[in-house]
Amino acid sequence: MKAKGGKRTERGFGFDSYLSPFTWRYGSPEMRDLFSEVGKRARWRKVWLALAEGEHKLGLVTKAELDGIRSKAGREDVDVEAAQELEKTIRHDLMAELRTFAAQAGKGGGKLHLGATSMDIEDNADALIFLEAIGIIKSKLVGCLAESRKLVLKYKDTVCMGWTHLQPAEPTTLGYRIANYAQDLVTDVEFLDAVKGFVLGKGVKGAVGTSASFKALLGSDARVRELEDDVMIRLRLHAFEVSSQTYPRKVDFLILSALASIAQSCHKFGLDLRVMQSPAFGELSEPYGKLQVGSSAMPFKRNPVTAERMCSLARVAATAPLVAFTYASNSILERTLDDSAARRIVIPEAFLAVDECLTIYESLVRGLCVYPVMMERNLERFGPFAGTEAVMMKLAEKGMDRQEMHELLRNRSNEAWGEVMAGRPNPLLSILSEDRTISSKLSGAEVRRLLDPRGHVGDASERCESFVRKKVDPILARHARTGKHSR
Amino acid sequence: MKAKGGKRTERGFGFDSYLSPFTWRYGSPEMRDLFSEVGKRARWRKVWLALAEGEHKLGLVTKAELDGIRSKAGREDVDVEAAQELEKTIRHDLMAELRTFAAQAGKGGGKLHLGATSMDIEDNADALIFLEAIGIIKSKLVGCLAESRKLVLKYKDTVCMGWTHLQPAEPTTLGYRIANYAQDLVTDVEFLDAVKGFVLGKGVKGAVGTSASFKALLGSDARVRELEDDVMIRLRLHAFEVSSQTYPRKVDFLILSALASIAQSCHKFGLDLRVMQSPAFGELSEPYGKLQVGSSAMPFKRNPVTAERMCSLARVAATAPLVAFTYASNSILERTLDDSAARRIVIPEAFLAVDECLTIYESLVRGLCVYPVMMERNLERFGPFAGTEAVMMKLAEKGMDRQEMHELLRNRSNEAWGEVMAGRPNPLLSILSEDRTISSKLSGAEVRRLLDPRGHVGDASERCESFVRKKVDPILARHARTGKHSR
Amino acid sequence: MKAKGGKRTERGFGFDSYLSPFTWRYGSPEMRDLFSEVGKRARWRKVWLALAEGEHKLGLVTKAELDGIRSKAGREDVDVEAAQELEKTIRHDLMAELRTFAAQAGKGGGKLHLGATSMDIEDNADALIFLEAIGIIKSKLVGCLAESRKLVLKYKDTVCMGWTHLQPAEPTTLGYRIANYAQDLVTDVEFLDAVKGFVLGKGVKGAVGTSASFKALLGSDARVRELEDDVMIRLRLHAFEVSSQTYPRKVDFLILSALASIAQSCHKFGLDLRVMQSPAFGELSEPYGKLQVGSSAMPFKRNPVTAERMCSLARVAATAPLVAFTYASNSILERTLDDSAARRIVIPEAFLAVDECLTIYESLVRGLCVYPVMMERNLERFGPFAGTEAVMMKLAEKGMDRQEMHELLRNRSNEAWGEVMAGRPNPLLSILSEDRTISSKLSGAEVRRLLDPRGHVGDASERCESFVRKKVDPILARHARTGKHSR
Amino acid sequence: MKAKGGKRTERGFGFDSYLSPFTWRYGSPEMRDLFSEVGKRARWRKVWLALAEGEHKLGLVTKAELDGIRSKAGREDVDVEAAQELEKTIRHDLMAELRTFAAQAGKGGGKLHLGATSMDIEDNADALIFLEAIGIIKSKLVGCLAESRKLVLKYKDTVCMGWTHLQPAEPTTLGYRIANYAQDLVTDVEFLDAVKGFVLGKGVKGAVGTSASFKALLGSDARVRELEDDVMIRLRLHAFEVSSQTYPRKVDFLILSALASIAQSCHKFGLDLRVMQSPAFGELSEPYGKLQVGSSAMPFKRNPVTAERMCSLARVAATAPLVAFTYASNSILERTLDDSAARRIVIPEAFLAVDECLTIYESLVRGLCVYPVMMERNLERFGPFAGTEAVMMKLAEKGMDRQEMHELLRNRSNEAWGEVMAGRPNPLLSILSEDRTISSKLSGAEVRRLLDPRGHVGDASERCESFVRKKVDPILARHARTGKHSR
Repeated sequence: MKAKGGKRTERGFGFDSYLSPFTWRYGSPEMRDLFSEVGKRARWRKVWLALAEGEHKLGLVTKAELDGIRSKAGREDVDVEAAQELEKTIRHDLMAELRTFAAQAGKGGGKLHLGATSMDIEDNADALIFLEAIGIIKSKLVGCLAESRKLVLKYKDTVCMGWTHLQPAEPTTLGYRIANYAQDLVTDVEFLDAVKGFVLGKGVKGAVGTSASFKALLGSDARVRELEDDVMIRLRLHAFEVSSQTYPRKVDFLILSALASIAQSCHKFGLDLRVMQSPAFGELSEPYGKLQVGSSAMPFKRNPVTAERMCSLARVAATAPLVAFTYASNSILERTLDDSAARRIVIPEAFLAVDECLTIYESLVRGLCVYPVMMERNLERFGPFAGTEAVMMKLAEKGMDRQEMHELLRNRSNEAWGEVMAGRPNPLLSILSEDRTISSKLSGAEVRRLLDPRGHVGDASERCESFVRKKVDPILARHARTGKHSR
Repeated sequence: MKAKGGKRTERGFGFDSYLSPFTWRYGSPEMRDLFSEVGKRARWRKVWLALAEGEHKLGLVTKAELDGIRSKAGREDVDVEAAQELEKTIRHDLMAELRTFAAQAGKGGGKLHLGATSMDIEDNADALIFLEAIGIIKSKLVGCLAESRKLVLKYKDTVCMGWTHLQPAEPTTLGYRIANYAQDLVTDVEFLDAVKGFVLGKGVKGAVGTSASFKALLGSDARVRELEDDVMIRLRLHAFEVSSQTYPRKVDFLILSALASIAQSCHKFGLDLRVMQSPAFGELSEPYGKLQVGSSAMPFKRNPVTAERMCSLARVAATAPLVAFTYASNSILERTLDDSAARRIVIPEAFLAVDECLTIYESLVRGLCVYPVMMERNLERFGPFAGTEAVMMKLAEKGMDRQEMHELLRNRSNEAWGEVMAGRPNPLLSILSEDRTISSKLSGAEVRRLLDPRGHVGDASERCESFVRKKVDPILARHARTGKHSR
Repeated sequence: MKAKGGKRTERGFGFDSYLSPFTWRYGSPEMRDLFSEVGKRARWRKVWLALAEGEHKLGLVTKAELDGIRSKAGREDVDVEAAQELEKTIRHDLMAELRTFAAQAGKGGGKLHLGATSMDIEDNADALIFLEAIGIIKSKLVGCLAESRKLVLKYKDTVCMGWTHLQPAEPTTLGYRIANYAQDLVTDVEFLDAVKGFVLGKGVKGAVGTSASFKALLGSDARVRELEDDVMIRLRLHAFEVSSQTYPRKVDFLILSALASIAQSCHKFGLDLRVMQSPAFGELSEPYGKLQVGSSAMPFKRNPVTAERMCSLARVAATAPLVAFTYASNSILERTLDDSAARRIVIPEAFLAVDECLTIYESLVRGLCVYPVMMERNLERFGPFAGTEAVMMKLAEKGMDRQEMHELLRNRSNEAWGEVMAGRPNPLLSILSEDRTISSKLSGAEVRRLLDPRGHVGDASERCESFVRKKVDPILARHARTGKHSR
Repeated sequence: MKAKGGKRTERGFGFDSYLSPFTWRYGSPEMRDLFSEVGKRARWRKVWLALAEGEHKLGLVTKAELDGIRSKAGREDVDVEAAQELEKTIRHDLMAELRTFAAQAGKGGGKLHLGATSMDIEDNADALIFLEAIGIIKSKLVGCLAESRKLVLKYKDTVCMGWTHLQPAEPTTLGYRIANYAQDLVTDVEFLDAVKGFVLGKGVKGAVGTSASFKALLGSDARVRELEDDVMIRLRLHAFEVSSQTYPRKVDFLILSALASIAQSCHKFGLDLRVMQSPAFGELSEPYGKLQVGSSAMPFKRNPVTAERMCSLARVAATAPLVAFTYASNSILERTLDDSAARRIVIPEAFLAVDECLTIYESLVRGLCVYPVMMERNLERFGPFAGTEAVMMKLAEKGMDRQEMHELLRNRSNEAWGEVMAGRPNPLLSILSEDRTISSKLSGAEVRRLLDPRGHVGDASERCESFVRKKVDPILARHARTGKHSR
């Protein structure tokens, strides 16, 4: 089997043993690649190379040694199987990879890892991986925003019923509702950007963060700092000013919180869509895919399975921060391995879950099916009631007693509501138009106008535009400029 | 690549893409197998076969049809790749497997799944898998208990310092401390047994749990019940009396809570061991493995990496119940897919995490290194203080004023404590023996006896025995009798 | 201000400072009482008294001393303010209460707490409180079941649309759906009963669980055991065979998991009800309360605020087990205070949250509003499609080609579906009756019968009865016999 | 009973019913006040006043009406009891408060709340409260940083043993270790600042966020916007560009995540301190308080109860974000009450828990007891081993075979380690000095120098300084300038 970029491996893991759904069912190839063993080891080599380059500059590694190292520092040089053979003996994955690399790197091999502790390599590599993964997520968020933007503008004037407590409230517009989802994404982008700023490398600080081994090699604090600065620049990372054996695992908590926040946006949108897709509402549906196998008795049934999957995966991402909380909290003194096994699981899976969620989110927004007829029907059934307040105000203006009018409209509304719930057309307009008290003050046309839900959506349309202009467009513009190479 | 039991697959998933650590790093082969695609589909076929057998009995399936089905119902008939090829079109894993099976089953193919909805197959298969997985976990728990039992009895009289707030308290015995860990395992066994009783199959109840399709085929409530009873007996499952499209996902929550409870026991034991393994205490250590690559500067350093791994994995299992809570809570009416994707991830991984934890737990208990010399040292340093109360009581007995003696002993203890914390031998015995007031009432030998920590471990030893006799042995005996075939 | 049962207190805590909503908004008086300071201290005194009685029997406490203790061991003797005054100095709530009690108890005061450590009192008192609290919860669960039972039987034949993925599926009956909620409650009752079996007292085992202090007083293991047994019998508690300074906090995790399971049932029922109460469905609603202030424009709007509150509180209970997981896992050696502050918060609040949820649950079931007309309407709109399979089978019986008929019905269904979604009556019956192919084989009456949703609810009705008979009635009968005095 | 600022209340809630520990045990008065009913209602009135002022400016409210409103808008006008009397009838806390206010406000009463929906008031008030609460937390964080700064500088050169896996690793300095804790606080400050930027008001947007009611009153989008801008400026809040009935509950998740991050820092520091306070290490302890009641047998025992309490409370804050996740995710369409009850509980309690944690944190850092003698002892026992690498490098420099020297030192180290673990002084220096091979190359003084742990702390000291200069001082300076009035 061909390992993309890595050495050929003779075998892989098949369906006869446990495979995570993230291995083959959920997640994008880019994200899977980033959290593959090959991907990780490629970045370890990158860090080892940067360290060697820095040490070369400071006279600890010769040109020839560096050349040896550099010649085997590529992703294609990773040989997981060889390393794992070694790992059986030494039981330490990074050390096994180091020896594998060293054996390949000729005379440079002896200078690999000079002065370093495992976590100098691993933690900086993790920062690289997380930043790339954040980049993927950011791009997808922006993609979702770009698609949402179109809908916000397209449907900014498309009036539909608004629902609170799952009860009809005042009308809104579809564009405005989608603007709310998009605003969540905007928050997520901004929050992710903020969190990204906390993703620093450990730097090269040795076993307990004091750089003792490097100082022994280099002799002075200044030269230690020079080495770290140089290595970090090569890696395009900032480093924590101080560290224990590892960078503070608090950072994992922050990253996973940002992912959970995105998951939350996905769940909210997905659940709303699923409700709207119910024929009881019927206003929206997720894109029709290839014909799914469903009940043959109900060929038209459109199960929102994609939105459901998004919601289901969102909850997997939701608990990940808590795992990071516990390992960050319980790491004692300069370091314990409370983090290790858990990090191997929850970090990749949270990224992959959110990655899949956003793939789904974008496809849902891009292909969203909108049923204006159903919106009309729901508006017709439930919308006119929202206009009774306007009727009352108009009657009060015309001198009627506020309290009496309130009572009158209340009774008339209840009457109309009974009809609606009995499945008949909403009679509110005719009831009010034919009411003697009301018709003495307002013409039928006036009542019709006042009851028209289209007249009760406030500044929804304007807000759609201003939201896009103020909040979405700047993000799209910035992203277009910098793309994922923003760091 | 040879799928164990399944059809040959041409390829597997390698280290160049995302692989869960549970695929290759953590978890036992048996548990991985149980949660493999092949393992799952093998159980689907088992349920399909049981259904066909039940329907044959009731005249819906002919002997020839049943024979065709039975001839291809084995694990070795599973052909994941063929099924996945179909899944691309129909986008439903169980339906794709059904068609694959049907194509193999000759004339029986048309009668497969007769009257069933997907979840009639999937949910009963899940119950089978969960019960087997619980069986594996139970066996491992019992294995840990059996090993712990040995230590409880072996060390029931081995006095060591007890610690509260990480401060020396009264002495205890090592056996008694281990009995506390073992008592947690006993609780876990009993709780797991209780939870196992809640793992029922859905039965065969169709799309919304009403068995409408089966009643259409069979004509009467009684025959519907007869079919379900028959199928369940074949599967050795009990069925829920009523169901929605699925069995209630509350059951997942219960299972995952039982796993989390086990994880908690593992964490508690692991953390204690790690503390005791610190040279600052030095009383215990996990078994020495093959020489790990550690700091060459400190070859003797015994990092408790196995116990740390157990603790780290425990926290992954800890959050799983919460995921089940959310999908069980948010499934609406007769069923939504809020559960699906999340179940594919959290249930296998919780089982695999706890499976690995228990493998570690047993190895730790079996090979536990005990350092009596260090226990002695710690007792010598911190133990005598626990005897001052006995000294006081004896002095009071001999007529001294209780309050004055309290004050006296308090001052003397503080004096001795200062010496201990300065790294010198604990002088409490000589201080008290030489105190004029005390020596006027108590001989040096008496003081020595009263201060001896060995005299202050209460009934620890007896409790070790009674605990083993009353709590552990019955479980071991029951398990020996019934083994994992207990259901 | 009069402390119910306790001493008069001069002041209370008012709305000008933080008050938990559980203090005044959510939760029953009984449950609040149980987790009050007075309630807790009353149980401390109960344990102190039981200990003194046991010690009297064994000759450690005189009759006169015991009388002094007994005379002040009542709830009415608790004087929180006095104790808190002392606590300022000694900073230990139980010790302050002890001194307060001792000062009241005359000559018995000096013998209070003899040989005990704080947790001998506190942990046994907690077990008493938890068992009482579980009793309250159990009674409420049974109350919910009793009300649910009525609805299951009343509506067992009331056909309504079943929904999967929020899409119309096959019909079910309202009684059957409620039976599913009730089955969750049955599981909760059984699970709570199982968990109750794990709620043992710590016993009287002293500072590190070895009973050293008691052995010093009593001289032999047998007499130590005799004391513990005697005290536990007086308290009607079982004791753990071994303990650290505390009973294992795993028990808290189990209790909280049982509460979370109940919360989950409440959330599921509440969410379904809220969906059904939406006028888009309109089939159910929570009882009308006193007129709430809502939108005056929509007086008929029935916001399901009670069900929403239940769902909201359910999620507070959901995370509590995880808190217990972390403190149970991180308690080191014989005890740390990782548990203390967290236990004071999450345990009462989880009980109070679930207590409130069940109060709501019962009121919802008791007063549930059912709208048969809306069920009819939804059935009429969405139900006939579920009968097309029966039509096809009948046509196939009559010799028509299965595949062709499938295609035909598929097309006709899609046609009818379009009408339904356009808000018009479901024309499926007339479409099929008038179809030439179909009408050549089936009479209009036959088609009508086959499409009638009432004919497609399987054994729902029978299952309602058998569920009540097999699952609910035994619980109700048992509870009626034993009530909350079951322990 | 006098409600501070509010009306007199006749009674309060006492210890005879449930009181949250946050009411009387944990949390500062300022924070409790902020989350009191009076505090909340005072801010509701503030929002009502700001709305009236804005509406006055736009001609909707007369000067006289505004004066009436303004005259009763103070905290001292809040009358919870009167409002709660009304709430019994109308069952809506904000509406009851509104009527109470209206009754007080004379002719302005009728114009209160004009055009608004409850959440226009409540959500903006919440933003005000959260920002103030964040301000309190921020100030405390800064206070902890200021104290930590002193220790970092004071102990930057105080060498102590570093520990990884709870095993002795390389030495570090106490100042450097504390710098790591302080770096966590720096991250928390920066993260909290970032999160604060997401705390916007809802604005005044009515029932479904479209401002329909305001547009009806004001006639144009521009005037609606003008009103909102004006009101927000008065409240010193920014507003979300769009909203549903509420601001997005995602914001709660972000706030609670920031609090959880702080809790995590507290837990990490607290746990480390507790380990260091164990006499097995003995290097640090929390400040001695008033004499606590502990074991009279061990008067010197210093239980780290304050640090333990901090750790325990930290885990209460840890789960709060997850609760917000679920209610933010499950709020459907324009709003459901999935949030309401849960928000009343988890938000105040997370703030109060972290508030208490930081009070403790500061007291711990301010009064931290440092035991240099114990540091020396531990260094003497475990420190020299860290120098063996330096010895080897020096020997290699002097021409010895690296591999052989490695082996030699390994054996000698193991020998010395055995002595140390037997409780004897670390003999490594004499063993190496007396080794013939080594002494042939290195003088005893050289070996001594190489083994001296003080020579192996790298740039810890310099890093302490640069960390303070680059990371801490800017925060302190900024905070001194802006204080909590930073918004």
